[in-house]
Amino acid sequence: MKSFSIEDINAIINGEVFGETTNEITGLEQIQKANKHQATFIGSRKFAGLWKDSKASLAIVNENIDIEPGDNRVFIKVKNADLAMAKLLETFTPKAPHFETDIHPSATIDPSAKIGSGSRVGAGSYIGKDVVLGDHITIYPNVTILDETTIGDHTTIWSGTIIRERSVIGSHCIFHNNVSIGADGFGYRPSDDGRGLVKIPHIGNVVIGNAVEIGANSCVDRGKFSSTILGDGCKIDNLVQIAHNCVLGRSCIMAGSSGLAGSVTLGDGVVIGGSASIKDHTTIHSGATVGAGSGVMNDVEAGKTVLGYPAVDSREMLKQWVALRKLAR
Amino acid sequence: MKSFSIEDINAIINGEVFGETTNEITGLEQIQKANKHQATFIGSRKFAGLWKDSKASLAIVNENIDIEPGDNRVFIKVKNADLAMAKLLETFTPKAPHFETDIHPSATIDPSAKIGSGSRVGAGSYIGKDVVLGDHITIYPNVTILDETTIGDHTTIWSGTIIRERSVIGSHCIFHNNVSIGADGFGYRPSDDGRGLVKIPHIGNVVIGNAVEIGANSCVDRGKFSSTILGDGCKIDNLVQIAHNCVLGRSCIMAGSSGLAGSVTLGDGVVIGGSASIKDHTTIHSGATVGAGSGVMNDVEAGKTVLGYPAVDSREMLKQWVALRKLAR
Amino acid sequence: MKSFSIEDINAIINGEVFGETTNEITGLEQIQKANKHQATFIGSRKFAGLWKDSKASLAIVNENIDIEPGDNRVFIKVKNADLAMAKLLETFTPKAPHFETDIHPSATIDPSAKIGSGSRVGAGSYIGKDVVLGDHITIYPNVTILDETTIGDHTTIWSGTIIRERSVIGSHCIFHNNVSIGADGFGYRPSDDGRGLVKIPHIGNVVIGNAVEIGANSCVDRGKFSSTILGDGCKIDNLVQIAHNCVLGRSCIMAGSSGLAGSVTLGDGVVIGGSASIKDHTTIHSGATVGAGSGVMNDVEAGKTVLGYPAVDSREMLKQWVALRKLAR
Repeated sequence: MKSFSIEDINAIINGEVFGETTNEITGLEQIQKANKHQATFIGSRKFAGLWKDSKASLAIVNENIDIEPGDNRVFIKVKNADLAMAKLLETFTPKAPHFETDIHPSATIDPSAKIGSGSRVGAGSYIGKDVVLGDHITIYPNVTILDETTIGDHTTIWSGTIIRERSVIGSHCIFHNNVSIGADGFGYRPSDDGRGLVKIPHIGNVVIGNAVEIGANSCVDRGKFSSTILGDGCKIDNLVQIAHNCVLGRSCIMAGSSGLAGSVTLGDGVVIGGSASIKDHTTIHSGATVGAGSGVMNDVEAGKTVLGYPAVDSREMLKQWVALRKLAR
Repeated sequence: MKSFSIEDINAIINGEVFGETTNEITGLEQIQKANKHQATFIGSRKFAGLWKDSKASLAIVNENIDIEPGDNRVFIKVKNADLAMAKLLETFTPKAPHFETDIHPSATIDPSAKIGSGSRVGAGSYIGKDVVLGDHITIYPNVTILDETTIGDHTTIWSGTIIRERSVIGSHCIFHNNVSIGADGFGYRPSDDGRGLVKIPHIGNVVIGNAVEIGANSCVDRGKFSSTILGDGCKIDNLVQIAHNCVLGRSCIMAGSSGLAGSVTLGDGVVIGGSASIKDHTTIHSGATVGAGSGVMNDVEAGKTVLGYPAVDSREMLKQWVALRKLAR
Repeated sequence: MKSFSIEDINAIINGEVFGETTNEITGLEQIQKANKHQATFIGSRKFAGLWKDSKASLAIVNENIDIEPGDNRVFIKVKNADLAMAKLLETFTPKAPHFETDIHPSATIDPSAKIGSGSRVGAGSYIGKDVVLGDHITIYPNVTILDETTIGDHTTIWSGTIIRERSVIGSHCIFHNNVSIGADGFGYRPSDDGRGLVKIPHIGNVVIGNAVEIGANSCVDRGKFSSTILGDGCKIDNLVQIAHNCVLGRSCIMAGSSGLAGSVTLGDGVVIGGSASIKDHTTIHSGATVGAGSGVMNDVEAGKTVLGYPAVDSREMLKQWVALRKLAR
């Protein structure tokens, strides 16, 4: 376990130290649960009262918060306790799961695959024909990467994830567990006899930029003939559906259980709330926000916030909700 | 196939037998589909009329239901046909999938892992460094359990499930297929240049109590620094999202496709309906119920039932729905 | 890469050719993105104006659309550009991922399993006791098929999918990545001491017809004692939940993130929109449509379209939405 003095910690977060303690700090914890070897954070005044009864030896607090250090305890004032917390979380991050060897003997690597320097492949993983992995990539156990996929440097792929053939994945990406990339899009046409459905082949692929993170059990389908595209810096939560031929700009955020139907376009910096869903062929322009639980059926202008089902401007929707509440009385 | 006489069956359910049959019972089936070697159940009067045309040789019926046994057929009156059915389902449960050897030679077990007596690990599964498995645990094929995770006695983990490092899992739990436990929570901060997002490390873990069941393709994310916690006896259905730092009390139920955003707290015995979603940092107090499809944006008092989007007291929401229907006419 | 002349292509789609080109066609692309070796499609007049600036050498257009071929470029008029596209997508479909050997040496096949002629099993896959695979089945790497399951000819199962014991799967099916078939249904009863929940065993199975397609990360639970049944030709998108004892007729469509609670019955040709959810024990009769995002709480008559939460006849719901919008002003 890593252990730090107050001085070590303040060297990272550059705040002002009040009080003294002989305790070393080995971890971070919420204020009510912390023990004497843990640091905690007070980002707003309403939590300041909990410090008195906390067992933590160290609190990192916003500079507008006044507390007393107390006996053998310390607090450090910083401009932004949240930012200090993010830095300390990096400091306290424990080791990633262990690799016995770079390429585990139980992994199956097609002889035509190319694997860059410093890249590692865990037990039971499969790397298909003509796959090209860059440098310093980590493939955890039981991952499947099918033919002709390319993956950029420093990308991490957690166990259970499947990447279908001909995907193009950038560098510094993180794919969490049981993600499905590049499954066929959902498209059918009536059969010639009119009595059933015939599958429309999806011969496109998935193209994912750099620094993209995709949450556990989320899906990105391949395009019909063009690509389904996620721009640099997109962050996708768990259980999210991104259908065929969607195009996401840079740094879009999709929260848990949300979904895009086919051929949806998101501009840059679009935020989709949890469990929201977007109709096919609509465009959500840059900087727009879709509230949690919304069902969007029309294009959304840049910078606008929409809410509700069917989604409209959020202030308009709040008025509808108030009006309905009054009506029911 | 197991085969039982009427006497064998009544020894299990302790009812009152009417009529006689020479047929042995080898299974259970719905009343319209049953054959002469199957037992069926009649829990309410509206299904009693189907007995006459059923091919089943045995019906287990609630004691307030009057039917005639008929020729070479039997019925057994019990206090609670549903409870009798649950007991007989246990009796008729077929053998679980076969294990050739306790630890399959194609599984990868880190030499530092400890595996208790009577525990079995299927083909292709991975057990990481310093994992501790208790006794009588069943790990089906192609499961991945990463470093320093501990799992209690008699827990069953079905194929495709991934448990990330440092998870703490209780005894008598069941994890269905393709479950993702302990993926990173979804948290970012603006980058210093303001042009992108920086990942907030999630160094906490997941702690799951005893007798917890988690459905196929569901996700429980690890905490930021504390733990994401599921109390004893929680039952989670398929495709459910439980985000970082949620805390669930004892015996909570979450139905299919529902989701909790970050840091949601559920008391004991909370019931979340299918496809419902709960806003981050809210608390649903003990014994409360959230109706199917609801979007909850505020705390819910103990014992209360809320419904709708946005969710309010269920009677209030029903009034809103009626009022809107009238308004539209 | 496959390469085709204009004559080759018109032999497939049987249209009328206008203009001439020396360029061979090696792929299909959207009109704005195509290069000179790609064909594109113009299905409606509003996209006809894009042809002038497109780099594509070939456009397949509906017969009511008038464009000029231009220099070294061709267009082909057909009755139905969408249908022509579907045929050409089949023509241009690239090779499926490579198999080194029919049965990969790292796959685990129980000696009692039967595997038909021309069937292939990828690296790391598990085929359990008494499984019966028909002919020309493709099992990609890291699939798990548990005991006594039977699978019909020409079915394809992509990586990460888990099929639990005693499932019955038809022929010409496609299961995409990380699908979970046959996990236990979600059913509990109060424990005898009233302080917890006891699992109700689910001893039924899943029965899936022919030509059924199931999207990535979707789930179909096994029945309590009868079967959960999907009829021939059903098409299920990603992240869809189908609970225990649901019965789907022929050619039903369920779009992404939709869900059926326990014992829901769908007739033939039912369409469930994206993110819609259906209450347990309801029946949606043949030819009915459930709009995207709907929450259905009652049976739906044959051929009817319902919409909204709670779902009612779609015209009625549109009136409600208009009325509420007016009320809020």
